[in-house]
Amino acid sequence: MEFKSKIKTIEWVDNYSKMVDQTVIPYEYKFVNITSGKEMFEAIRNMIVRGAPAIGIAGAHGVILYAQEFEQEGLTREEFVKKLIEKAEYMKTSRPTAVNLMWAVDKQIEVIKNSKSDIKGIIEELKANGIKLENEDIEINKKIGDYGAEVVPKGATILTHCNAGALATVGYGTALGVVRSAFAKDNTIQVFADETRPRQQGARITTFELAMDGIPVTLITDGMCSYFMKKGMIDMVVVGADRIAANGDTANKIGTYTVAIAAKYHNIPFYIAAPLSTIDVSIKSGDEIPIEERSHEEVTHINGKPVCALKGVNVINPGFDVTPAELISGIITEKGILRPDYKKSISEAFNL
Amino acid sequence: MEFKSKIKTIEWVDNYSKMVDQTVIPYEYKFVNITSGKEMFEAIRNMIVRGAPAIGIAGAHGVILYAQEFEQEGLTREEFVKKLIEKAEYMKTSRPTAVNLMWAVDKQIEVIKNSKSDIKGIIEELKANGIKLENEDIEINKKIGDYGAEVVPKGATILTHCNAGALATVGYGTALGVVRSAFAKDNTIQVFADETRPRQQGARITTFELAMDGIPVTLITDGMCSYFMKKGMIDMVVVGADRIAANGDTANKIGTYTVAIAAKYHNIPFYIAAPLSTIDVSIKSGDEIPIEERSHEEVTHINGKPVCALKGVNVINPGFDVTPAELISGIITEKGILRPDYKKSISEAFNL
Repeated sequence: MEFKSKIKTIEWVDNYSKMVDQTVIPYEYKFVNITSGKEMFEAIRNMIVRGAPAIGIAGAHGVILYAQEFEQEGLTREEFVKKLIEKAEYMKTSRPTAVNLMWAVDKQIEVIKNSKSDIKGIIEELKANGIKLENEDIEINKKIGDYGAEVVPKGATILTHCNAGALATVGYGTALGVVRSAFAKDNTIQVFADETRPRQQGARITTFELAMDGIPVTLITDGMCSYFMKKGMIDMVVVGADRIAANGDTANKIGTYTVAIAAKYHNIPFYIAAPLSTIDVSIKSGDEIPIEERSHEEVTHINGKPVCALKGVNVINPGFDVTPAELISGIITEKGILRPDYKKSISEAFNL
Repeated sequence: MEFKSKIKTIEWVDNYSKMVDQTVIPYEYKFVNITSGKEMFEAIRNMIVRGAPAIGIAGAHGVILYAQEFEQEGLTREEFVKKLIEKAEYMKTSRPTAVNLMWAVDKQIEVIKNSKSDIKGIIEELKANGIKLENEDIEINKKIGDYGAEVVPKGATILTHCNAGALATVGYGTALGVVRSAFAKDNTIQVFADETRPRQQGARITTFELAMDGIPVTLITDGMCSYFMKKGMIDMVVVGADRIAANGDTANKIGTYTVAIAAKYHNIPFYIAAPLSTIDVSIKSGDEIPIEERSHEEVTHINGKPVCALKGVNVINPGFDVTPAELISGIITEKGILRPDYKKSISEAFNL
């Protein structure tokens, strides 16, 4: 039985990108239409769209939007291509950690470079490729979900951190794709969702999308995970990824590494669920993954109101951390579950 | 050089208890006067006063307040004593986890039972004992601070969780007493403060009191601790305690256990700082410590506004967790630092 999610996070429509505005969830569930490249850059930067696979698609859409704009400027084909590739490269800088953004934009750059068409034709090819990437994302997520469901014990409680769900992808989810596929087979499973401070994607987004799809979810704060693990209330952990190095080290939302250490201490399996496009084989280890430092207000304020003394208080706000491969039980991909030694299994997955 | 803190958290004045209202920090720094036993019960329950040692003193004050009320009722001495002891026992139920509350109320019950005076005289003795407990608390904290300062490396960054500071005690702090004593010797040390969701005592109270006393403090969210530990930016962890079992297992604010596991993984010393009155030798291990389950709104709302989907979302909100003795490098008390094997060192400390 296939699980039907109600959520479509991002979608190309005629000549614009339509996306769920994730900054207002759970207070509102509304869509915004992004109609220019600059708007898309800001939408990614300000996390109107977030989640590594979803911002990959957003980046691909951004390239189409720039192309539509430049078409109006009366450029030669050569000028058009040069300017478009420049802006595509710029689009990649909207968020530095998730590699899917670079991967998807590069897919569009390939289309541009390989095209034999005129400007109009290039734009059509970029649109077709954007839509292809969207559809592939859902298909890949479903494969990840189905592979992952095989390692979910009957009646399991699955802990997740941040949101690697339908709202982090086009519409099914990676970590929550595993949950959806497992739930379709066994509706006695349930999810514990870490709040995920500072931006509370777990509280705001994961609880929202699971409640929307009727999957039982319990919200806990980030510090509580070990308490429930010790009580035997957590059977496994599944999280997403923003970038995976060739040795399996995995960057994901800040706080993931702490959960992984707690899982290890309690002998609870800890899985990453991510498409192969999240694996950056060009880097050897997690030490090479750039970690985005985000605004201090994300820590000091919630819903616009300060939560701490503001005078005389320093803040550091790394957006991500790196979980070393030694803490990871498996990486669930669309080509199956990669196991340690990851250097070997990742390299094999890329050569399949 | 002795460190002078600007903070006096709770104080008996004439015929009432004056305390800092901790529910409005950091937005306001104001005092409330508690004038009846019922008000004190609510003040403890609703965390106007919080922190194990401070609620101990609050409980002791509460007994005086009840005594003053019953004096007006024209009771016989026998009726007065019976009713007062009943209410004193009831006062202990305002919060179940911190043992200092039981300890301090029991000290007042002893005064009542041992008194040879009339009603007026009993009340005077209770007041004198309340003030004695206050003064002792500061003296004990300073001893804890001085013992703890000996194990703080030069220029150290000390991570703490929740607030075991001046605002958790009468006026110097246990974990932050260690910080104050260390800072008096070496003003290059600094503190990293965990936010401590759900009630954010780290963000709201620890940053506030350290900034007030001019000690450098950096606020981080609860999930971040491992990130900074891995980077070598944390030299030691010091936290307070709500109850310590005879084997060294320690109940403290939810999230402490997760920090302790992370510290162990990174080989970073993890200390408890607490007066001996926090040690409950009547219980063998942490399994016997009752864990308070608190209101779900503490998790689902911040400053009155929801932070998650509310429909279809479950919540569990344990107020405390238990860190097993095996993760604790030492327990810093007013009689020195207890080291493993704690069964032995605790038993020795009580027989000194």
